[in-house]
Amino acid sequence: MSAVPAAESPAPTGAAADLAERFARIQRIEHAVELIDWDTETMMPEGAAAGRSEIRATLSVLAHELITDPRIGDWLADAEERDEGGDPWQTANLREMRRRYLRATAIPADLVEAASKAASACEMAWRGARRDNRFADVLPTLREVLSCERRTGEAAGDALGLSAYDALLNQFEPDARATEIDRVFDDLAPLLPGLTEAALEGQRRAPAPLPLPAVVPVERQRQLGETLMRHLGFDFTRGRLDVSLHPFCGGGGPDDVRITTRFVDGDVASAFSATLHETGHALYEQGLPLAWRGQPVGTARGMTAHESQSMLVEIHLIRSPAFLAFAAPLMRQALGADTDPAVFEPDNLFRVLTRVERSLIRVDADEVTYPAHVILRFRLERAMIDGDLDPADLPGAWADGMQSLIGTVPPDDATGCLQDIHWFGGLWGYFPTYLLGRMMAAQLWTAAREQLPDMDDALRRGEAGGLIGWLRTHIHTVGSLMSNDDLVRAATGRRLDASALIAHLQHRYAAS
Amino acid sequence: MSAVPAAESPAPTGAAADLAERFARIQRIEHAVELIDWDTETMMPEGAAAGRSEIRATLSVLAHELITDPRIGDWLADAEERDEGGDPWQTANLREMRRRYLRATAIPADLVEAASKAASACEMAWRGARRDNRFADVLPTLREVLSCERRTGEAAGDALGLSAYDALLNQFEPDARATEIDRVFDDLAPLLPGLTEAALEGQRRAPAPLPLPAVVPVERQRQLGETLMRHLGFDFTRGRLDVSLHPFCGGGGPDDVRITTRFVDGDVASAFSATLHETGHALYEQGLPLAWRGQPVGTARGMTAHESQSMLVEIHLIRSPAFLAFAAPLMRQALGADTDPAVFEPDNLFRVLTRVERSLIRVDADEVTYPAHVILRFRLERAMIDGDLDPADLPGAWADGMQSLIGTVPPDDATGCLQDIHWFGGLWGYFPTYLLGRMMAAQLWTAAREQLPDMDDALRRGEAGGLIGWLRTHIHTVGSLMSNDDLVRAATGRRLDASALIAHLQHRYAAS
Repeated sequence: MSAVPAAESPAPTGAAADLAERFARIQRIEHAVELIDWDTETMMPEGAAAGRSEIRATLSVLAHELITDPRIGDWLADAEERDEGGDPWQTANLREMRRRYLRATAIPADLVEAASKAASACEMAWRGARRDNRFADVLPTLREVLSCERRTGEAAGDALGLSAYDALLNQFEPDARATEIDRVFDDLAPLLPGLTEAALEGQRRAPAPLPLPAVVPVERQRQLGETLMRHLGFDFTRGRLDVSLHPFCGGGGPDDVRITTRFVDGDVASAFSATLHETGHALYEQGLPLAWRGQPVGTARGMTAHESQSMLVEIHLIRSPAFLAFAAPLMRQALGADTDPAVFEPDNLFRVLTRVERSLIRVDADEVTYPAHVILRFRLERAMIDGDLDPADLPGAWADGMQSLIGTVPPDDATGCLQDIHWFGGLWGYFPTYLLGRMMAAQLWTAAREQLPDMDDALRRGEAGGLIGWLRTHIHTVGSLMSNDDLVRAATGRRLDASALIAHLQHRYAAS
Repeated sequence: MSAVPAAESPAPTGAAADLAERFARIQRIEHAVELIDWDTETMMPEGAAAGRSEIRATLSVLAHELITDPRIGDWLADAEERDEGGDPWQTANLREMRRRYLRATAIPADLVEAASKAASACEMAWRGARRDNRFADVLPTLREVLSCERRTGEAAGDALGLSAYDALLNQFEPDARATEIDRVFDDLAPLLPGLTEAALEGQRRAPAPLPLPAVVPVERQRQLGETLMRHLGFDFTRGRLDVSLHPFCGGGGPDDVRITTRFVDGDVASAFSATLHETGHALYEQGLPLAWRGQPVGTARGMTAHESQSMLVEIHLIRSPAFLAFAAPLMRQALGADTDPAVFEPDNLFRVLTRVERSLIRVDADEVTYPAHVILRFRLERAMIDGDLDPADLPGAWADGMQSLIGTVPPDDATGCLQDIHWFGGLWGYFPTYLLGRMMAAQLWTAAREQLPDMDDALRRGEAGGLIGWLRTHIHTVGSLMSNDDLVRAATGRRLDASALIAHLQHRYAAS
């Protein structure tokens, strides 16, 4: 099946032991921060916000001090010299340590602070600008953020041997390169208008979906979510499900994986999808290699792999006819006390969950139009970092991109370039991982079905263990042992590209 | 009213600024630890326990490294030399910093670690020994803990100019001295047998209390607790109420004060009392001086003052005829749907809440016998630290003490010297603050009633603002400005002693 070498518990000595202890310490602080962030979103009384951000900042500074300690450079040089590649896990762990150390020491402390302040100020301005639909209000602080991000990318890029934009990508997806992203995105982009047309045409010919009930008691929705989480293998002795304004997966390490969802009247399907999306992330975290707990090589590979796990569950597993056949009666029992049973026929549920429309808003977009939203953002943020697009021209460039990629133009900036928090909050180089993750999900799903001939039958019985076990073997327990390219290749036999996603979209939306 | 100088926001320079920044940083880490501890007791999935204790230990080590930094010694010397006493808050802040620094640097790191390990091992042995009722099983590890605690007390005592036992007291109650505790405890101890006799005799003559309903839905109990918390001024925008196995007050600083309670079928009164006890602690934390947030002088004075606030609410306020007259209808509404209304007559509620019996167990003890439990523990732990009592002789000494102080002897060690976790978990010098806190509560309550002539009328209307405002002025907003002795004297005009508690017990239990 896999070429992944077995992970054995590390027993390093000398410099390697110093490094292991130091990085474990850093990771424990990061887990403390994650726990506190979870608390902020789910439990914190509102009056605690100011003190909370100080607590968080203090822990971040401590972690930063620990990773920029010059002794790490000496330890790394020593350990790298002694490493003879006998244990590929140990070698990979050193590689990940080196990457993090280079990155952390490359960016001057005053730039870290300036970037953090610029992002805070811009994010605040953005909230007002979006509310008032006035892009001009956020432009000055956006320029400041862009300047900080460009300088950050340049500094990290010098240390890592990358372009500024690739160095920004690197913090979320270590092995990504813009030119490579161009290649896979450009395969997909020209097909999207046609796919969207075909999907809309198919929808017009098919019966309109019967909607899920608008209002279902939260407790019933939660129980349905928990039941399906258990079926997928989520371990509640090492995790939780809670409620927050925006769903996320966080917690305090692989034995404390906490996902959140939200229950909105009038959109029961959205809570259902969000819970299972986050479950995909959570299964990855709970499945990370035990022997390398606390070490960089024991963490998730990157945001592409992470998003692949959530999308594989949300888009491929949950919407598969086999799984829907199993889930439909459970959904009916939980959600449909007074509802027409036809709503809970698997075919109808499938139509509800795969409805397509030309949405202006990325987070509301269906899977056919979603890629165009990401491609647009990738092209624009890269152009801004490279100096080819002035932020003042962003609204116009946005409209042009929407027209050519999706065939619709937003009436204003609030539903245009102001819709996502990322750029204003200092998150540059993140967007592409959303689509790379979808491509990886499609490629993994295709490979798993080929390698597990009984999978559909099992899913029909509600048994996801075969699929999840396959993901455990090929993705979860591999941690950061190899590059994402190698991870995908080892699991699927092929380099990551758009073909599986294209085939999936054509099959699901343009086959008939 | 008070001789407390106004607290103004600090704007220190030079070494004082370095100190302020350093101690603020330490306090933020301590708040992170408190938040994580809250999470451990209320939210944590069981499988996360091992990783959790590592996260906690890492943060504790970081805080310890920050406070033992030798530069603090230089900064302190510089700041103390420049301090001309112009701002008593600044002077007090330096004094508190000095005390913490002396304490932290006095105890060698290997002793800190040895004590922590000994306590962990002993606590585990204690759980088994208590379950199996075999003191001998815990004796070896208890000797180890005692040895570590004695050495800790000696080391800290050398630095602080205190005896070993006083140096242990000092970590919980900075100004306490064993000889002074002897003085106030010895005033009370001889009266306890007679008070207990009188209380039991009074009970025999009075009608037996009608019990509260055994089972009340948790949600109704919680709502009653929240309603009364609001009446006492608990600010839910800066705090929470949750459920844990053992009630406590924690959180992440004065804007994030979290109390917990527990709801046990068959003991509705206990949840009621526990919630309000913790509310007393919480009001103190929420009321700490705003201008000195983050600094040592801005924290609670010590465990005596803290316990005084919880006991003032639990014992004096809640059981007062005036407050019970107000609370009775609320309690009936929340707890008494199908219950004889006579249960919720204020007189009956008073009898339920003030029932006396010769309990063997401290945490179940009524307020008449409780002091004897503490006096016994104080005398025994001091004798062990001083080398006057060998741990092997603890069970015998315990029986002798129980006989003379309470007039009853435990049938075994599980209900005797094994009942409390403190000694086995490494908490030495803590016990006396429970009783000192009760004395302080009685003295404060007496002074408040004298100074607030309308208090009873207000309480009868459910208005606790006058009393709480008085506590805010005299205790909460004073933080650690002065010693606990001076704090009590400034608020009540008298040094802390047993007289108010004696008068209270005589009035409540031996008057008729």
